[in-house]
Amino acid sequence: MSELRRDPVIGRWVIIAVERANRPQAYVPPEKPRSAGVCPFCPGNEHMTPPEVLAYRPPGSPKDGPGWWVRCVSNKFPALAAEGQIRRHGDGMYDRIDGVGAHEVVIETPKHDVSPGDYDQHEFQEILWAYRDRALDLARDQRFRYILIFKNHGRTAGATLDHPHSQIIALPIVPKRVQEELAGAKTYFDYKERCVFCDIMDQERRDHVRVVESNASFVAFCPYASRFPFETWIVPRRHESHFRDIQKNDLTLLGEILGHTLQRIKTILKDPHFNYIVHTTPCDQGMLPHYHWHIEVMPKLTQVAGFEWGTGFYINPTPPEVAAEYLRGVEIAAASPETPHTPQESVLPAPPVPTPTPTGR
Amino acid sequence: MSELRRDPVIGRWVIIAVERANRPQAYVPPEKPRSAGVCPFCPGNEHMTPPEVLAYRPPGSPKDGPGWWVRCVSNKFPALAAEGQIRRHGDGMYDRIDGVGAHEVVIETPKHDVSPGDYDQHEFQEILWAYRDRALDLARDQRFRYILIFKNHGRTAGATLDHPHSQIIALPIVPKRVQEELAGAKTYFDYKERCVFCDIMDQERRDHVRVVESNASFVAFCPYASRFPFETWIVPRRHESHFRDIQKNDLTLLGEILGHTLQRIKTILKDPHFNYIVHTTPCDQGMLPHYHWHIEVMPKLTQVAGFEWGTGFYINPTPPEVAAEYLRGVEIAAASPETPHTPQESVLPAPPVPTPTPTGR
Repeated sequence: MSELRRDPVIGRWVIIAVERANRPQAYVPPEKPRSAGVCPFCPGNEHMTPPEVLAYRPPGSPKDGPGWWVRCVSNKFPALAAEGQIRRHGDGMYDRIDGVGAHEVVIETPKHDVSPGDYDQHEFQEILWAYRDRALDLARDQRFRYILIFKNHGRTAGATLDHPHSQIIALPIVPKRVQEELAGAKTYFDYKERCVFCDIMDQERRDHVRVVESNASFVAFCPYASRFPFETWIVPRRHESHFRDIQKNDLTLLGEILGHTLQRIKTILKDPHFNYIVHTTPCDQGMLPHYHWHIEVMPKLTQVAGFEWGTGFYINPTPPEVAAEYLRGVEIAAASPETPHTPQESVLPAPPVPTPTPTGR
Repeated sequence: MSELRRDPVIGRWVIIAVERANRPQAYVPPEKPRSAGVCPFCPGNEHMTPPEVLAYRPPGSPKDGPGWWVRCVSNKFPALAAEGQIRRHGDGMYDRIDGVGAHEVVIETPKHDVSPGDYDQHEFQEILWAYRDRALDLARDQRFRYILIFKNHGRTAGATLDHPHSQIIALPIVPKRVQEELAGAKTYFDYKERCVFCDIMDQERRDHVRVVESNASFVAFCPYASRFPFETWIVPRRHESHFRDIQKNDLTLLGEILGHTLQRIKTILKDPHFNYIVHTTPCDQGMLPHYHWHIEVMPKLTQVAGFEWGTGFYINPTPPEVAAEYLRGVEIAAASPETPHTPQESVLPAPPVPTPTPTGR
C-alpha cells in the first residue's frame, strides 16, 4: 500500500508509492523508444483494463465490450488502494496516512487519434457528465475528503498513454493548493462579504481585456496573474461551490465553452500539450458562500518547472491581455446541430456482439 | 518594464513580461533545431554579455576579458528592471508592483562542456563564494526583500544555454513558497519552541534511513515527504537562518557535500537534468530562531508538471528511503588535494592579453 506523507514545514501531503519503489533505472530513458503496442483504451480491448465502473453505451450492450462513447475504469496502476480504512500514524515527528483512495480513468472517446480541441460539444458534454457522475458516486464514500478531476494531454503534460483520457482521484485529504484557495477566498469573504471569484468575474466582464468568450452561464478568461502563457480559467457566472451540483443546461454550456477554449488553444499554439483541472469544494462540505468552483486550463509551453515548483514563483512571458486577444481571434468551427445525445450518435457503429475476452483480465 | 501581479485568491505573485509579450509563434517548436552558435558564456566571448558585476580572476587581469574561473553578469534578457523605485498600484480589485529587481547570471566555470556532477570541490567553493558575495551585495539595496539563488541544469529543467550557470534574482516581494516555509516553521516554533529543521535533522540522524551523507557541518538527506524521486536536501547542522552568513570552514564543507550529492545523482541517474534552490531568510530580516537556510536539489525525472503545479499534490514513485540507499551506494571520486584556490589553478592558461572587444557591447 502507498502512503500519504506530510511535509513537517509546509504541511503539504504527497503520495509515496512505497511498494512500487521505482529504482534509478526506471528514470533513464530507454535506448530505443518503446513500440506503441496495443492501446488498452481502444474499443475491442476492454479486457485489457480493470472492469468499467461507468460507461455510456447503447441500452442493452454488454458491460466491458465495445459500443460505449465514454468509459470509466479503475486505474490499472493506482496511486492509492481502494480497500482499507484511513489510518493516521506518527513516525517520530512526522505524520502519515495509509494510502487509501480511488484512482480512476475516464476514457473520453473510442477514437484513439483525436485531440480534445477537435471534440464536438456533444462529446464534451458526455465527458462532463461522466466527471459529475463519478464525482457524485465517489463523494458518497465517507473516507474521502476531496475528488480531484484533471486531464493531462500529451507527454510533457504527464500523459503516459496517447488515447484521450482524464483522471479522477479521490483523496483522504484536501490538496494544499485547494486549501490555499479556500483559505484565500475565506479571507476575502470575511473582509468584503462577497465571493472573490464573483468579484473577479465582475471586473473581467467590465475590463473585457482578458475575456476570451462568455455565454449565458460561463466566462472564459486569462487570469490577471496568469502563471503560464495562455492559461485560461472557465468560471460559472452564478455562484456555485460544487462542480457536482451543475444543472443540465449549464453543463451543455460548459461543454461548449470548454470545447471552444481547447479549440482556440489548439489552433493558435499548434495542438500543445496541456493540463486542465476542475477546482471544487471538498466533498464533505456543503455549499460555501466564499468558494466558487471553476476549471483551470494550462497549456504546457515553457520549460521552467523545477524553479517554479521550488519557489512558487512564476515568470510569464505572455501577458494575459495579449493571450486573450489571440485566443479571441480564433474562428470557432461551426457546431454540429444541437440535438440531444442518443446512442445513434455514437461514433462507432454499435457492434451487436461484444468481442470475447478469453483471458478474463 | 515588467510587472509583478498578485493572484487575488491565492496571494501568489508572478512576473508578467508586459513588454516582451511573447506571441503564440514563440512557443511553437521550430522545424529545425536552432544551431548551437557561439556561446556567450565561453572565455573570449565576454563582450557578448553585459559587463561583469563580479569575477574571480588572476590579480591584474582585465575586467570583461578571459582568465576568470567564476564570472557574474546581469542577465541580458532580465525578468526585472534594475532601475526605478518599487511602486505599488491598484488595478480595480487587483494588485501589482512595478517589475523592479535584479536578475544576474553566475557563469560557474570557463569550461563549456562539463556537468556540475564533475566539478571538483574547489570549483564548487568558488561558485558558492560568488553566490554569497552577490547575495550580500544585492541585500544592501533597500528595495529588495528576497534574494533567490537557483540553478537549472539541462533543457527540461529550464536551462536555455548549455554552458553551466546559475541565476540570482533579487525580488521586491517574498515568493509564496518561502512565505509558506517561514509561516510553517513559525507555527512549529510557537508550539515546540524548537526549530523544525533542527528537529528534522535530529530525527534523520537517528533514523539514518534517509541520510545520504553528513560531515561536520552539513547533512544531505532525502526528505520524508519528498515530492520528487531522488530529491535531496542539504541542511546546515548548526541553526543559521541566512545563507549569506556562512563561515569559511562551513562553505568548504558545503562545496564538498553539494559536489558529492550532484556526483551521486549524476552517477546513478545518468546525468539527469535537475534544479537546485537555496532557501534562505528574506534579506531585510535578521536572525530568526525558527528558520534554517538549506539547499533543495530536485532531479527532473518525471513528467507530471501541470497537475502538480495546479494542485500542490505530488505522487512520488520512489520512496526517499530507497532513493537514499541508492545515492549512498555511489563511490565518490577521490577529491583533489586540499589546497587553497589560487590563480594558478585556473582551468585556463591565464592569457596575458585580453581579446579586444571592438563592438563594446
